[in-house]
Amino acid sequence: MPNLTAARPFTARDFAARTGRAAEAAAAAGLAGLVVTPGPDLLYLTGYQPVAITERLTALLLSAGREPVLLVPRLERPDAEACPGASSLRLLDWADGADPYPVLAPLLDPHGSYGISDAAWAMHLLGLQEALPDSGYRSLTRAVPMLRAVKDADELERLGGAGGAADAAYRSILEVRFAGRRETEVAADLAELLLEYGHSRVDFTVVGSGPNGANPHHEAGERVITEGDTVVLDFGGLRDGYGSDTTRTVHVGPDVPAEVREVHEVVRVAQQKAFEAVRQGVECQEIDRVARRVITEAGYGEYFIHRTGHGIGLTTHEPPYMVEGETQPLVPGMCFSIEPGIYLPGRFGVRIEDIVTVTATGGRRLNNTPHELGIVA
Amino acid sequence: MPNLTAARPFTARDFAARTGRAAEAAAAAGLAGLVVTPGPDLLYLTGYQPVAITERLTALLLSAGREPVLLVPRLERPDAEACPGASSLRLLDWADGADPYPVLAPLLDPHGSYGISDAAWAMHLLGLQEALPDSGYRSLTRAVPMLRAVKDADELERLGGAGGAADAAYRSILEVRFAGRRETEVAADLAELLLEYGHSRVDFTVVGSGPNGANPHHEAGERVITEGDTVVLDFGGLRDGYGSDTTRTVHVGPDVPAEVREVHEVVRVAQQKAFEAVRQGVECQEIDRVARRVITEAGYGEYFIHRTGHGIGLTTHEPPYMVEGETQPLVPGMCFSIEPGIYLPGRFGVRIEDIVTVTATGGRRLNNTPHELGIVA
Repeated sequence: MPNLTAARPFTARDFAARTGRAAEAAAAAGLAGLVVTPGPDLLYLTGYQPVAITERLTALLLSAGREPVLLVPRLERPDAEACPGASSLRLLDWADGADPYPVLAPLLDPHGSYGISDAAWAMHLLGLQEALPDSGYRSLTRAVPMLRAVKDADELERLGGAGGAADAAYRSILEVRFAGRRETEVAADLAELLLEYGHSRVDFTVVGSGPNGANPHHEAGERVITEGDTVVLDFGGLRDGYGSDTTRTVHVGPDVPAEVREVHEVVRVAQQKAFEAVRQGVECQEIDRVARRVITEAGYGEYFIHRTGHGIGLTTHEPPYMVEGETQPLVPGMCFSIEPGIYLPGRFGVRIEDIVTVTATGGRRLNNTPHELGIVA
Repeated sequence: MPNLTAARPFTARDFAARTGRAAEAAAAAGLAGLVVTPGPDLLYLTGYQPVAITERLTALLLSAGREPVLLVPRLERPDAEACPGASSLRLLDWADGADPYPVLAPLLDPHGSYGISDAAWAMHLLGLQEALPDSGYRSLTRAVPMLRAVKDADELERLGGAGGAADAAYRSILEVRFAGRRETEVAADLAELLLEYGHSRVDFTVVGSGPNGANPHHEAGERVITEGDTVVLDFGGLRDGYGSDTTRTVHVGPDVPAEVREVHEVVRVAQQKAFEAVRQGVECQEIDRVARRVITEAGYGEYFIHRTGHGIGLTTHEPPYMVEGETQPLVPGMCFSIEPGIYLPGRFGVRIEDIVTVTATGGRRLNNTPHELGIVA
């Protein structure tokens, strides 16, 4: 059972330390600073999350050695003032009908190069480029990929809690009836279980039965699950602000075809070998290669059509990515999924996914339910 | 009571007509084309909405006289193929680990200027700018502001249905108890009512009681509402894919202070005069000016701290904006909010909001509950 006690709240001091580290990381990357718009980076750096992300510009400007500045729409100023990181920020606002870029631009080095949030709206980037034609911009994730990748002890506690809750949800879902029910019904059960075990938000509950399991991004549909189906269950959300993301594959009824057993075993070994490859200093792409090699050598390489994993933290998709070409070395505290899969079009799919963190001595799983093909009724 | 029958689904022909009109509008604006990423514009143009908006590039490329191209991550291709507009699109995909920009870039004019979705991720715009250094980009909303602003008959039917459902929710909320309950409890009632009256999604349920009503973007908090409070109720969501957004201000108990009555009456008149100013050819900013003039002349100008309105359709905030500086003339079929307010810091706020559509002869409200200060128990 997951530990349902809440972790201690992050403090103004935590946020000040994070903005300081981020500004230093930007300088080390040759940048004049960072422009951070609403989303997980802003939440990480200030604790601030506007009620909604709209066309109105909200941006945190970080530059090494200078006080962080948070520019917000005037009518959201009271919310910004109440955020846990506010005491170490200078707040500026702009009024509806005004152009926000001339307010922000004078705070930037007109010839400087800045990292800007990956998900910043293109219209805001265009506004800055127009206001400061000699300034330059880089994707914040490309420029400072490690910004949120290494989790501290408090974050690991939250991720462990989320993983434990997802494990509890999986154990419980094995007890519910699958045969004769729609995928959407089992998905609703999964969502309810995640909430019951302390998630504040459910982000996805994939129930891919039979041929639907062969589409790795199928969510859940109206298909009625039947005896003999192989079913991919991939579910997660936020608990205490941090993400869970787990996949297990189950079979409806005890008569498992030899091919399903074989494919499942290949995926299980791929996941296990990739996990065993986790240690500090190893390049992320190596984790992908290890999993892919197992699947390719078993003759299923063309059916493993996605990367092996993604980082997780305040979001369920973030650096580091376990993908060919990612040479970032693993660092203790990084957390990411290892989720190889095989997808046989029109027939069935198998995927097994755990969240793993890098320790000083190797990898540690944050999901701990068995990897065997689950048998459901 | 709202009409709960669903409108007819949009067809492949509808989407083909929309992409054609959009490409022509881009050409008329001097653009080589449009780059449209996931969000309401993509939904409007293709009916396609990826399961989640992630860092993986999905983009629709429209150029006058050329077949529309939709680039998607390979693992989302089955979803894209199933979208209602797919038959008039050429689908391309890119695989995890590959760089998507070199796939998209050869389809663009290397010296062309493109409109790009306002909310496109900055990292994607940077990727295109890097791949095609001589190409140019403009905010799609600035370049082609009218793309979705003028609604056709089927869209107006949906917006009318959403407005009617919001009206029904307001009538019902007047019957519930306010005094002694937390704002969040009344907000939950409002959300339940919107769903009961056919909304598929609730986007916001603002319950701003007493001093909280003076923060126009307060949502709902733990404050316990008491007799004598003035309460701003602002709620909306999606019904049949289109938005509702209504505000009414109520008072808890019959003993309404003279000042609350006065402020409410000023806002009511401002809303009414602004509504009466709606007719085709009038500039959007004129609607803002009319409302603002009433409030300023009553001595409350400094307490009306936001624009008067925003367009609504597939989203609840979209062009046209009723704001100083917006010279776009009103066109029949446009739909937008008229929502003046007065916010007395630390004390109370008043706002009245209707969705209005422009007709050949003036304005027509899509919300039709009384504007008087509602009295609740």
